[in-house]
Amino acid sequence: MRTLIKHALAASEPKDNLIIKGWVRTRRDLKGFSFLELNDGSCLANLQVIVDADRPGYEQMPRLTTGASAVIEGSLVASQGSGQKWEMRASRVTLIGESDAAYPLQKKGHSLEFLRTISHLRPRSNLFGAVFRTRSRLAFAVHQFFQERDFVYVHTPIITASDCEGAGEMFRVTALKGNVDEKPEEDFFGKRTYLTVSGQLEGETFACALSNIYTFGPTFRAENSNTARHAAEFWMIEPEMAFCDLQGDMDLGEAFIKSMAKYTLEHCAEDLALFAKFVDKEVISRLQFVVDRPFQRVPYTEAVEILKKSGKKFEFPVEYGQNLQSEHERFLTEQHFKCPVTVFNYPREVKPFYMRLNDDAKTVTAMDILVPGIGEVIGGAQREERLDQLRENMRYHKLNEADYWWYVDLRRYGTVPHAGFGVGFERLLMFLSGVGNIRDVVPFARTPGSADF
Amino acid sequence: MRTLIKHALAASEPKDNLIIKGWVRTRRDLKGFSFLELNDGSCLANLQVIVDADRPGYEQMPRLTTGASAVIEGSLVASQGSGQKWEMRASRVTLIGESDAAYPLQKKGHSLEFLRTISHLRPRSNLFGAVFRTRSRLAFAVHQFFQERDFVYVHTPIITASDCEGAGEMFRVTALKGNVDEKPEEDFFGKRTYLTVSGQLEGETFACALSNIYTFGPTFRAENSNTARHAAEFWMIEPEMAFCDLQGDMDLGEAFIKSMAKYTLEHCAEDLALFAKFVDKEVISRLQFVVDRPFQRVPYTEAVEILKKSGKKFEFPVEYGQNLQSEHERFLTEQHFKCPVTVFNYPREVKPFYMRLNDDAKTVTAMDILVPGIGEVIGGAQREERLDQLRENMRYHKLNEADYWWYVDLRRYGTVPHAGFGVGFERLLMFLSGVGNIRDVVPFARTPGSADF
Repeated sequence: MRTLIKHALAASEPKDNLIIKGWVRTRRDLKGFSFLELNDGSCLANLQVIVDADRPGYEQMPRLTTGASAVIEGSLVASQGSGQKWEMRASRVTLIGESDAAYPLQKKGHSLEFLRTISHLRPRSNLFGAVFRTRSRLAFAVHQFFQERDFVYVHTPIITASDCEGAGEMFRVTALKGNVDEKPEEDFFGKRTYLTVSGQLEGETFACALSNIYTFGPTFRAENSNTARHAAEFWMIEPEMAFCDLQGDMDLGEAFIKSMAKYTLEHCAEDLALFAKFVDKEVISRLQFVVDRPFQRVPYTEAVEILKKSGKKFEFPVEYGQNLQSEHERFLTEQHFKCPVTVFNYPREVKPFYMRLNDDAKTVTAMDILVPGIGEVIGGAQREERLDQLRENMRYHKLNEADYWWYVDLRRYGTVPHAGFGVGFERLLMFLSGVGNIRDVVPFARTPGSADF
Repeated sequence: MRTLIKHALAASEPKDNLIIKGWVRTRRDLKGFSFLELNDGSCLANLQVIVDADRPGYEQMPRLTTGASAVIEGSLVASQGSGQKWEMRASRVTLIGESDAAYPLQKKGHSLEFLRTISHLRPRSNLFGAVFRTRSRLAFAVHQFFQERDFVYVHTPIITASDCEGAGEMFRVTALKGNVDEKPEEDFFGKRTYLTVSGQLEGETFACALSNIYTFGPTFRAENSNTARHAAEFWMIEPEMAFCDLQGDMDLGEAFIKSMAKYTLEHCAEDLALFAKFVDKEVISRLQFVVDRPFQRVPYTEAVEILKKSGKKFEFPVEYGQNLQSEHERFLTEQHFKCPVTVFNYPREVKPFYMRLNDDAKTVTAMDILVPGIGEVIGGAQREERLDQLRENMRYHKLNEADYWWYVDLRRYGTVPHAGFGVGFERLLMFLSGVGNIRDVVPFARTPGSADF
């Protein structure tokens, strides 16, 4: 029975009859024996294996090159060297699959750009093994966070005929050939369909039945942005709570961010140490900052005044009635307040129709959560639950009410104050790992001009 | 602070100063007081509330009709009636949102067909509340099953330029207008792209780095099938294990099915009882059957002989070299073996190129797991890990090797025996709940001619 290297290295005592299966990272041949560094992806660390020249299979040693796969039988013994606690003494070595000289991960020090061209092999490297183990653990931590709080996970649709934001940039989905605009009524679904940009509106229908729900699924933007922060396909987390106002929404968002930072520090320590060493020296202290410091809440109007009075020269000017830019957000959290910041009550004109209009008739109950190093990591709002006001909002934003009949229905039948937010999972991962390009936290990134593998 | 009804009903002692928020299911007015049945979606059961006529808010009682939302303050006291352990004595009632006479869920006994036309409201019904709570719990149980076993969750791409099965029926994804076949090189990704039918091939690249992985995400078929078992959009779970053969694959698949059946019996008891009462009287005994009985493994060739010798009249004839139909599968598990059955080693010609060719050169290491009531619930295989044989398989299936260069690469660099399987999450839910139509286990179903909401 195979033992994973992470379990072997966590052993509390020596063990005989161990079977390890993995890939060779390096091999050193000395007089009468060889050292193998074996990795199986279960953890960052390799297991060091000592193979004496008289062991069965030793004659295969020259073919156990970097990238080759092997099965090692033997004993786990206390390590003689200074590094790890345990090492393995092989009683038998079996080569499984060779790896020839063309193997692209032979040498260290490849650029991230090059590694993207071999996305099918890069999870075998230290950095990307760490990234994708962390991605998996954090995805599970997201589910745990919400399930422990009695939120129901909802799979909102990927293919949709409606447009949540009322603002284009959607991919078309079609089973038609040739001209797809001629007879859309003959398409698979009998009309034009698109890839969803958000599950929020459908999520609201479930919150208005089951109280607390969340989505966690892929969303899409056909936006021609070639930046380090944009991808055409990314995963979003969108909780929605019935009987909840803006305060409750900020409470949940702040608790979520703190919880994810704490989880990363506690459960991804080995991989996080790698990020701190090679990717972003500040990452651990930044996570500790978010865990330790209380969030500061500040109305948008006040945030604009702080920025204007700061005397700081920004690339983008600060104006009331404009969305804050990343540089503004980072100034607020990193330099002014020196703690994570939640900005709320944004001007109506820069936010979507579904946000609740405040009594001042100028602002809506939007909120953005800002963290150091990245700026906005969560955007949310209390939703407009009043039927007449929602209709007025739709006219204000020039939307056709008939397209949203089912969404409007929620305000007709037992409407409740409700609120939620959205988190881009990849941006969250970039914040938690310090990895600077979204292409490097996605298994196979989809960006303009690139849909390989 | 709000208490969810599921927690109120699970109380171990009476409690004062309780705040319950939910929707009215029914109201009965008696002399001097009223009964309200309140539901908040946190569980199937309603909380019975007694409101005396002298309580603040009692004057709103006539507007607290079915579907209206309300906040009730009061005490949790031992129930006088025969049904539940606890009921609530209101000290104050506050109407939040009215529900007028047009509310479509007023009366009971709507058809499932009608309820699909109000998919935005049906989670407020007993049946669909139960379905979607169960869906959420089982999705989490899937993650728990794999995470506890050290599998890494991988988000394989949704938009893809490759075709896993080599067999069409894919939706096109495009940002082009008008004729989409004229200049596909000018499309968003610089080529034709589609919605994925499976994440398996990409999943294999991660298994060959991290050892044990699983996917859990949406997949798509542009297949014009209007049956109770087909949807154009559905969620799939696809584990993949390095250093694993067909035996290990069957072991994992069987353990998975048993674990899901056990989880449903233990953690979804209240909702499952509803399914047993109104949807499928056999569902509980069928789950117990799968939990209790060991799986029987039988080679395809032997299964065909059993079916031929059975003397049973099937709608579809049984022939070696044909895939088994649902009626054949059900006969094997329900009538012949009277236990869950795993059929393995299928003829090469009916299975995809990536399955491993057996030494008989006629069969491949495929396996299907069959359960009563439904037939196949899991399909999997050991993959072809030998470079030369994989190339021969591709020629046999008339595929172009260049389209799969990265997949072939896995066999060049440290290839390992590996295996995995796929489970359609909706079919699994149908099996576990007894719900007979896939449209009724999906929040908003996508089927030919239908992409509403």
